[in-house]
Amino acid sequence: MPGEVPADTPPPAVHGDFSSAERRAVYRAIHERRDIRSHFVPDPIPDAVLGRLLDAAHHAPSVGFMQPWDFIVIRQESIRRAVHECFLEANLEAARAYCGEQRALYDSLKLAGILDAPVNLCITCDRARSLGAGLGRHSDPATDLYSTACAVQNLWLAARAESLGVGWVSILDFDRLRAVLEIPESIVPVAYLCVGYVSEFPAKPQLETAGWEHREKLGQLIHFDRWGCQDKQRNAALLAATGEV
Amino acid sequence: MPGEVPADTPPPAVHGDFSSAERRAVYRAIHERRDIRSHFVPDPIPDAVLGRLLDAAHHAPSVGFMQPWDFIVIRQESIRRAVHECFLEANLEAARAYCGEQRALYDSLKLAGILDAPVNLCITCDRARSLGAGLGRHSDPATDLYSTACAVQNLWLAARAESLGVGWVSILDFDRLRAVLEIPESIVPVAYLCVGYVSEFPAKPQLETAGWEHREKLGQLIHFDRWGCQDKQRNAALLAATGEV
Repeated sequence: MPGEVPADTPPPAVHGDFSSAERRAVYRAIHERRDIRSHFVPDPIPDAVLGRLLDAAHHAPSVGFMQPWDFIVIRQESIRRAVHECFLEANLEAARAYCGEQRALYDSLKLAGILDAPVNLCITCDRARSLGAGLGRHSDPATDLYSTACAVQNLWLAARAESLGVGWVSILDFDRLRAVLEIPESIVPVAYLCVGYVSEFPAKPQLETAGWEHREKLGQLIHFDRWGCQDKQRNAALLAATGEV
Repeated sequence: MPGEVPADTPPPAVHGDFSSAERRAVYRAIHERRDIRSHFVPDPIPDAVLGRLLDAAHHAPSVGFMQPWDFIVIRQESIRRAVHECFLEANLEAARAYCGEQRALYDSLKLAGILDAPVNLCITCDRARSLGAGLGRHSDPATDLYSTACAVQNLWLAARAESLGVGWVSILDFDRLRAVLEIPESIVPVAYLCVGYVSEFPAKPQLETAGWEHREKLGQLIHFDRWGCQDKQRNAALLAATGEV
């Protein structure tokens, strides 16, 4: 059966192994997570569920245990309308990069569910947070932003497990967004998310189904020991279980 | 121990609610994931397991379906030794930021398992990748880096479910790292990870146990509708289920 672990190399038993059912559930969340734009339903999100999502985000890894994130929970419709304006303006601008068929396809895509989703979340990064005392940030100052993106992904996977869809809106006039949400200068809005229950979780990413882009072969992206050292045989050994080879 | 595998089976249906056991498993991965530095054991990672981890990373969200990541799988000892040098140099430099007790504490921390972990992974971001045709990157050019960080987090959670520890080494001389791994100019090394089986998954983050930093109260980080609008009562409703309130 595809995907079985070779029986001859058992890992050491440690306390806290996941059962195979638990492991499958984790992979299920990873593989069935979708970037949701057009399938939101208006049902409210219970506070306890939203709290679990935020708690999941707060348990992301962070450089030096800096925990640089904040969470703005946006439910008020007037605010969501103002953010929607930030999207419309930026989207008009972004659309200009495309022409002909590609422009028609771009215009047909629904790229944000700001007004449809009952909860919007802005996840920010405080570049000046003193927690962690700078540990791990000396070599690459962007690591706090990466930590914040990891928090987004934790929340996204938890949301999938809660049957909640999440869409990351990256097309926004961020200066206007800062003004709308009154975000101080030193704080970077990393992700603006729309969160809500959905009518369905599509089987594939919207941009794949719409013909905007295909999923790259994973084997194309794997290098061994040094950049550019690619190896079909070694790929085959790695990827036999994933169904790609 | 790892049995049959999940990853390649297609989603059962689009309804796809998670059972409560599945949901618990996802939260378990999120809450029991650790940044591992000092508990690696040398047992090799089976190819099929490593393949599933890379496949999990490859299923991260990406701006415009850009999939900007590549994965350098580093097993060769001479390369790991050279990377370890990049760490030692950068760590010496980083340590200078601390003095007195804090310096003594810093020096006592083990911050990288480059030589202990059987596999190192460098996850990179190709800023110039043409996949996705720039969709979603007009407003914030950093979104491709955020996508790559999401891929790291997918891999990290999958690793936890496979009983594999992951440590993110951010203290590195990145110029030297580029030279060692022959990474081209246009490619950004986002994460350097040590991956391997472990003797234990500590109950708390190492930096918390060592007294370097505490976990912030989640309630301190939640704002309602606008930055700075904090509300203890609404926090209580959100966080009752998390045990914080």
